[in-house]
Amino acid sequence: MPVEPSPAPLSVRASASRMGSELLSRLADIVGERHLLSEREDLYCYGYDGTAQHALPDAVVLPANTRQVAEVLKLANARHVPVVPRGAGTNLSGGTVPIQGGIVLALTRLDQLLEIDRANLTATVQPGLVTAKLHEAVERQGLFYPPDPASYSVSTLGGNVAEGAGGPHCFKYGTTKDYVLGLEVVLASGDVLRTGGKTVKNVSGYDLTHLFVGSEGTLGVVTEITVRLIPLPEERHTMLAVFDTLEDAARLVSNIVAARIVPVTLELMDEVVLRVAEASHPIGLPLDAEAALLIEVDGNREEARHQLERVSQILDSSGARQVRVARTPAEVDELWSARRAVSASLSRLCAVKISEDATVPRAAVPEMVRRIKALAREHRIEVAVFGHAGDGNLHPAALLQDRTPQEMERADRFFADIFRAALELGGTLTGEHGIGVFKARFLSLQHGAAGVAAMKAIKAALDPNGILNPGKIFGQV
Amino acid sequence: MPVEPSPAPLSVRASASRMGSELLSRLADIVGERHLLSEREDLYCYGYDGTAQHALPDAVVLPANTRQVAEVLKLANARHVPVVPRGAGTNLSGGTVPIQGGIVLALTRLDQLLEIDRANLTATVQPGLVTAKLHEAVERQGLFYPPDPASYSVSTLGGNVAEGAGGPHCFKYGTTKDYVLGLEVVLASGDVLRTGGKTVKNVSGYDLTHLFVGSEGTLGVVTEITVRLIPLPEERHTMLAVFDTLEDAARLVSNIVAARIVPVTLELMDEVVLRVAEASHPIGLPLDAEAALLIEVDGNREEARHQLERVSQILDSSGARQVRVARTPAEVDELWSARRAVSASLSRLCAVKISEDATVPRAAVPEMVRRIKALAREHRIEVAVFGHAGDGNLHPAALLQDRTPQEMERADRFFADIFRAALELGGTLTGEHGIGVFKARFLSLQHGAAGVAAMKAIKAALDPNGILNPGKIFGQV
Repeated sequence: MPVEPSPAPLSVRASASRMGSELLSRLADIVGERHLLSEREDLYCYGYDGTAQHALPDAVVLPANTRQVAEVLKLANARHVPVVPRGAGTNLSGGTVPIQGGIVLALTRLDQLLEIDRANLTATVQPGLVTAKLHEAVERQGLFYPPDPASYSVSTLGGNVAEGAGGPHCFKYGTTKDYVLGLEVVLASGDVLRTGGKTVKNVSGYDLTHLFVGSEGTLGVVTEITVRLIPLPEERHTMLAVFDTLEDAARLVSNIVAARIVPVTLELMDEVVLRVAEASHPIGLPLDAEAALLIEVDGNREEARHQLERVSQILDSSGARQVRVARTPAEVDELWSARRAVSASLSRLCAVKISEDATVPRAAVPEMVRRIKALAREHRIEVAVFGHAGDGNLHPAALLQDRTPQEMERADRFFADIFRAALELGGTLTGEHGIGVFKARFLSLQHGAAGVAAMKAIKAALDPNGILNPGKIFGQV
Repeated sequence: MPVEPSPAPLSVRASASRMGSELLSRLADIVGERHLLSEREDLYCYGYDGTAQHALPDAVVLPANTRQVAEVLKLANARHVPVVPRGAGTNLSGGTVPIQGGIVLALTRLDQLLEIDRANLTATVQPGLVTAKLHEAVERQGLFYPPDPASYSVSTLGGNVAEGAGGPHCFKYGTTKDYVLGLEVVLASGDVLRTGGKTVKNVSGYDLTHLFVGSEGTLGVVTEITVRLIPLPEERHTMLAVFDTLEDAARLVSNIVAARIVPVTLELMDEVVLRVAEASHPIGLPLDAEAALLIEVDGNREEARHQLERVSQILDSSGARQVRVARTPAEVDELWSARRAVSASLSRLCAVKISEDATVPRAAVPEMVRRIKALAREHRIEVAVFGHAGDGNLHPAALLQDRTPQEMERADRFFADIFRAALELGGTLTGEHGIGVFKARFLSLQHGAAGVAAMKAIKAALDPNGILNPGKIFGQV
């Protein structure tokens, strides 16, 4: 959502004046002088996330271990100072922006891959490990960690856990929360607890693991993560199908599901995306088609080939205008180039691109796309739609031609209507980005007063002073 | 665990005297006279679960809908009267035994299968629906709901959700918590909230869905459940392999995992179980073998056959003493007869059978079995070991020859040592039965003071008067 609370002018947020040199010196004692940042130019770098949102923290600390994290939290809790945990800060919800100032707790030095346990099919990592490094390490051993948020080459596992990150693989394989087996978490009090473990089955007490996954840094700071791995599928096949109408594309998705096939990827691109993709990476896509689907199936050799054959048969009778099956790795890259270039290509078309992730039940995807287009006309917003059709996780992107308050407000009203449409269709405000700052005001629309009250009661139970990432999920209090 | 808090003598718990006729009459107003039970012989029937535990409630109510559940809770909350929600009461943890009296809230009238949504691959049910009925209904439509606790022919979905139930399918497919997408829950206050929905991706606010799954009726009463379905695998193949030594069987499990095959079932039976099974259903099992594995693979035709072939190759070089592959449904039944008969057959061998579900990481299964056998010798307890070798979820069963306090105490000490061993090996107190009454005193051994404090804080936040299933998970306060 494009609502940008205007950050206070930089001069007002000069750090030492707000935080006090005594507290800064205590923080330096904990993490070491080198790993405490309090100069304005340093603070500036930790005020962003993946959105246009920005706010200055009062200090940034880069702890080296769990003990230091615990000491920082204990100190901050005693002084009622906000703490904003972060990894690479690639999230798209304002989640790591320190909107109330305070301490940014950057976990990027905790970046070790601690263990790959082949016998138990688990990996244990520190939160600052970059997701792609885990992918590469486990794949070298014939294993697979499926969650693949678009940011995976820079985002960290800690951030993925905090946001409950998804990605294109998730239709078949599930999201981050389906892979996290255990956590080490430091609570606001500085107490350290361990949840879950290496067993897939575990019903001992409450499922704290899944309470912390997706809690956006508001309940505790994750300092160690154990994830489940699965065998790496032997083969993958990639297809691109282009359709005259969106309805044809939607019907194909239904037919694939009805045939009891679960592709690993089922990415939808609308006409705007297709034209943009073809302009940036020409591969001969028809410019007057309404939709395309990038489809991938995987599994062991027999299973993958069987699925390729079945999907090809379904495509043959689907009225697809163009179908391409990649025969070589180069052809796979070519087919993916359109989808991969979407975000950057769209950004070049406009002054501000705002991308959302309202998600609906799979069967409601065609209706949701129709509503998005109708709302775009109504609000006079240029919109491009792409996303994960298999799991109903669409990414409507508003392409604004300038950054004026009027333009931003129009986009704001447009997305508010989109969120209402998603909820009306039985969906959710966010499939994989999180609530953060932008969607906080819609929380009760989805969860009702009782749902929000229950969440707030849990927040107050675990973080009574409200120091952890204040203003996120529930909005400014 | 065999610690049985001695229930108060029946005469003391005569209902009307404790609960008061005014409260009973208010309850009758809510659910109707016919659906309020307060006669001693009726109360008696709702004092059990699947263990030897028993305690009398003061009243039993059988609500017809969510509104009635909410009104009962509101009333009980105002009066600080315990409420124990239950379905079929098949759990093995003391979970539905009303150890502090109060109201048993039996959800068996809420037994409708509300919807099978083929397009979105979901089913929505009421909590009193028997699990097997859901299995049958979705399988008729070519769909699959994998969780299969041994009690599935009588247990209810609400009970499965409350306990986070598992079953033999869970090695490949995961447990109940991996299938629950959304819930309607009535809180202790009587407030009704909805969590999750029909979307697989959902990161809007805290994951309350997974907080309620496995919370054993201590945080809220589930009144509607939406579960994820998957396509029904086309084929399944069943094998039984018998081994001279337990080590050989364990090595086979490792080799299967190393070959990146995930069988749907991988059930271990030890020598005691084998002998008992052969005695009750003779199929020619060698009586001097130390272990057998019941193995099933499934998938679409190609995948299932490929896996059967690979597992057969691994079995050929494993030194298995006997391998049988079922060729007909009758042969499948024959191979399963041993495993299915275990529980009943073992019960016939002894006065009291106490079965537990301490769970360890898969690779620790051989060591855990060795420790169980050594502890059995040390405590002079006859023990049989069976369970789900793929996910480390073992069921050591103590076979006691009488019910004397001395015998029960010895079993108690034996299981306490087993729990400690499981935790030492990186495991958990319970893989699929829940903490309930029996394992409450071990909770902090697994979760530490900080973990238990966090759980208690959440309990107090959602149920401030502590009316929901008091004495469970955290023990008597």
